[in-house]
Amino acid sequence: MDVITREELKSASFSQLQNDCEALRKEIFDTVSVRGGHLASNLGVVELTVALHRVFCFPEDKIVFDVGHQCYAHKLLSDRAERFSTLRSRGGISGFPKRSESPYDSYETGHAGTAISAALGIAKARDLKGEDFCVIALVGDGSFNNGLIYEALNSLKILKTRILIVLNDNGMSISPTVGGTHEVLSELKEGNGPLADVALFERYGLHYMGVYNGNDFSELLPAMEQAKSLLSTQSVLLHVTTRKGQGYAFCEQCPDRTHGVSPNRPGKEYSAALGEELNALAEKDPRIVAVTAAMTDSLGLRPFFNAFPERAFDVGICEEHACVLSAALATEGMHPYYAIYSTFLQRAYDEVIHDVCGQNLPVTFCIDRAGITGADGETHQGVFDLSYLAPVPNLTIAIPSNISEFRAMLRLSASYPAPLAIRYPREGEEGEFLPVEIGKFAILHSNTTDTIIYAAGERCIKLAASVLSAAEAQGTGFTLVNARFLKPIDRDFILSRKEKYVITIEDNVCIGGLGDAVARVLRGSDKVIQSLGIDDTFLPHGTVQELAEECGLNKKNLLSCLLDCHAR
Amino acid sequence: MDVITREELKSASFSQLQNDCEALRKEIFDTVSVRGGHLASNLGVVELTVALHRVFCFPEDKIVFDVGHQCYAHKLLSDRAERFSTLRSRGGISGFPKRSESPYDSYETGHAGTAISAALGIAKARDLKGEDFCVIALVGDGSFNNGLIYEALNSLKILKTRILIVLNDNGMSISPTVGGTHEVLSELKEGNGPLADVALFERYGLHYMGVYNGNDFSELLPAMEQAKSLLSTQSVLLHVTTRKGQGYAFCEQCPDRTHGVSPNRPGKEYSAALGEELNALAEKDPRIVAVTAAMTDSLGLRPFFNAFPERAFDVGICEEHACVLSAALATEGMHPYYAIYSTFLQRAYDEVIHDVCGQNLPVTFCIDRAGITGADGETHQGVFDLSYLAPVPNLTIAIPSNISEFRAMLRLSASYPAPLAIRYPREGEEGEFLPVEIGKFAILHSNTTDTIIYAAGERCIKLAASVLSAAEAQGTGFTLVNARFLKPIDRDFILSRKEKYVITIEDNVCIGGLGDAVARVLRGSDKVIQSLGIDDTFLPHGTVQELAEECGLNKKNLLSCLLDCHAR
Repeated sequence: MDVITREELKSASFSQLQNDCEALRKEIFDTVSVRGGHLASNLGVVELTVALHRVFCFPEDKIVFDVGHQCYAHKLLSDRAERFSTLRSRGGISGFPKRSESPYDSYETGHAGTAISAALGIAKARDLKGEDFCVIALVGDGSFNNGLIYEALNSLKILKTRILIVLNDNGMSISPTVGGTHEVLSELKEGNGPLADVALFERYGLHYMGVYNGNDFSELLPAMEQAKSLLSTQSVLLHVTTRKGQGYAFCEQCPDRTHGVSPNRPGKEYSAALGEELNALAEKDPRIVAVTAAMTDSLGLRPFFNAFPERAFDVGICEEHACVLSAALATEGMHPYYAIYSTFLQRAYDEVIHDVCGQNLPVTFCIDRAGITGADGETHQGVFDLSYLAPVPNLTIAIPSNISEFRAMLRLSASYPAPLAIRYPREGEEGEFLPVEIGKFAILHSNTTDTIIYAAGERCIKLAASVLSAAEAQGTGFTLVNARFLKPIDRDFILSRKEKYVITIEDNVCIGGLGDAVARVLRGSDKVIQSLGIDDTFLPHGTVQELAEECGLNKKNLLSCLLDCHAR
Repeated sequence: MDVITREELKSASFSQLQNDCEALRKEIFDTVSVRGGHLASNLGVVELTVALHRVFCFPEDKIVFDVGHQCYAHKLLSDRAERFSTLRSRGGISGFPKRSESPYDSYETGHAGTAISAALGIAKARDLKGEDFCVIALVGDGSFNNGLIYEALNSLKILKTRILIVLNDNGMSISPTVGGTHEVLSELKEGNGPLADVALFERYGLHYMGVYNGNDFSELLPAMEQAKSLLSTQSVLLHVTTRKGQGYAFCEQCPDRTHGVSPNRPGKEYSAALGEELNALAEKDPRIVAVTAAMTDSLGLRPFFNAFPERAFDVGICEEHACVLSAALATEGMHPYYAIYSTFLQRAYDEVIHDVCGQNLPVTFCIDRAGITGADGETHQGVFDLSYLAPVPNLTIAIPSNISEFRAMLRLSASYPAPLAIRYPREGEEGEFLPVEIGKFAILHSNTTDTIIYAAGERCIKLAASVLSAAEAQGTGFTLVNARFLKPIDRDFILSRKEKYVITIEDNVCIGGLGDAVARVLRGSDKVIQSLGIDDTFLPHGTVQELAEECGLNKKNLLSCLLDCHAR
């Protein structure tokens, strides 16, 4: 793409800038149509990004993108226009800021709420080094629900430094933004009560400025210039309203459904089964409630929210609060289902331990997007959950092998009296119905050789099944086990097996996962154990297949493990 | 102790109540003098607790104590006066709310900021069940720095329920409370700017009421009664100022130093060495900065804060923000030391992964109070850190065997270019100086038998050393190794050893710790591995020695492991 140069940007007229915005938007739309990615958020923030690049001097000035998925225009305007068509593909441009990719990316993000803390750290380091540049945090209004933002705001005065917070207010946080802070922002936009609300921000040491038509350069640019000049003496909050999906009617009308776009139609999703089963269970059991941190649709909870609005809670991007809320609901006899992506559950780790498992409460964690998730890259892979959940006392950890088994686990969960985590990938197949008993493995294929494979989750079981005939043809057959509970692990089963060679496969880092758990049971035996899983490294972006292939979760590797057993 | 009954409390005169408060304070002071515990915070909250018990009907009404360490008067006034002298001792009354202990304890806490979320969950469950009782969150002003509080406030309107938040404002959060929110509260107390600040709380759906002399019943009780009556139609914030340490001059004057009290003089503390070494390093290296979440003194950072005030950051009880801030400081060339208790690092788990290790930044985590910590019980044991840190890529994990080795690790950390976690207990001995190389174990004692013990950390190494002569006397001697890096683990060393019997000992849960790491290296070998560590359960309160003994980290168990090896 031919994008406007940095020099042209500085001198262009408003109407030229508007044309450049349309060109940027077209490039974003066309690329996302092919590569998938975040659409509506990036379309809405084009004018804002152009204004930032016009007024500030990157990379000398530093910008931190909160969540990071709205950085496409920034990437096009910095040094990545030529490679932008490779967006989110293996080896191509990341969909999130990456320090290794460009000096224009100051700080890496992916999870919500970190930008103000990060900007403060960068600004403080600048002060300590005696340097002089501007530091900007670009934050969506959805993140203003997140507690980290308030922790950072509260320390503005402690840190005695200066940053510019650009609050990109589009009224959405994947789902529409909700709650008290949203009301504060709405009142400001509508010109009601600004005195009190402006005073709030000023109490934290921020000079408040509002631009309530942020897609219009004639309003936006003068305000941005003024913010920059104020920044030499104080911190500034520039509240800019934008339209998510700007310029594309469908996106403007349905910003939630066009927040993230997949290039291919997804297959059958586990989340759809969650919605169906939870509704069926909740019909019969008034104790069942559902909790989400701003992900109603992508988690499959829309049917529940429609059918049981009184028992469905979207608290905004607040993974920790959602977890404590779930625990507390359970203390009074409710049965909360807290649905969340694997990577975001990391945010609530202390609350999983301290509030849910510490009190041994019947909260069911529905952990979606577990395992390798693909194109969103490092910050979105769900490959740590088995490891960080395994050491938590009182927690049962289930790993369904197909959607049908996921349904069975959900039905079983309804009467389960203790904390339960069910972790599953985005896509899968309905598959065969398998009766489930807590803590019990299931044999999927028997073979009289001396090799047994314990595989956890649909992807790994399919991988093992896919080499079965090749393995049997070359005399390296195996018994295949659906290792569907990491905890309690099926000790009796594992100890009862006679096979000398044990292979484990999991869609999780090897450290602390299924392999270690099986090996722990087999301590003191003479079994030979090999484990396939994800190496001790952050997985970048790419397709799920590419990443699985690269990290060794592939047929070749598994066959060579099998040959290795038989060669001993 | 003879405490006032529930009935007497309801009808007592103000002066009688004041006498009862003095009796409660004496009981608290005397018990804490013997048992240790939280002193100043409990002394300050006596009148408030008496008022709550007078106005509300517990346990029908529910109260959630934020952090939980200020519940002593509540315990004395509910059903635990007779057993109160057993406070914090094994099998005795817990220093924190415990559901298993009494129906008066509605929700268990220990870490800051959860109370409003919990109260909302309890209240929402009440509404769904069609019941009618009052739900109260008692929150200190220190917690109002924590992000969870804002996540909960923000969802008050979403959840459409009613709670009473009692904000116990004593201006302290172990260290004095800092930051913007503190200023808001101060302005309210001093009668300046209440319009804007009250409006802030009202925006979140809270009716604001202030009692600015909360140790005086004539002000407190009428306000509490009014709050209760308002609660039938709306949520209320009752802002009560109290004096931390009330009634005991030394505590009033030094609330930080009397926040937590130990019955015995502690031995040599690792934190003191942190302070000394960090100051020496920082003299030479201007990149070194220190970050804490409201724990300056207990972490040993006071000398650093005194010597380098510009490079020392206490951001309040904000473990997550402190972690992101550290990461960002490192992106600009600083070398942050983020000191934190093991149990509180759970709060920043996502930021450890996403911000520090994801960007592979040179942040040094100084993880104090690791392992069994004793009398604070379940919520304060530091026994999960090895397990949850091990799966995080890019992170080096060091476990010093004595204070001298801790110093060596700190000196080494100054030039270490990547994330480094050093985890250590509160107390230890200076010990012998041992040169340290990243990822290298050290032999502490050689023996020609076929048994080797890998021990991590001072407590476990001392345990192994303590059985050495007994073991050698009975012909079950062993080589003792200081397993001082969990990651990278010393593969070469482990693989080079000929001993057939391998024992690991760690002051961490067995799942995911040193035992699993050593076993992973030894996969495919014919070694027989036994692991001593903490079982898969939450450790209650008791002395460190009692708990270590109970959970199997004891001489008897280790000797029996050794005999077991030799019997094979």
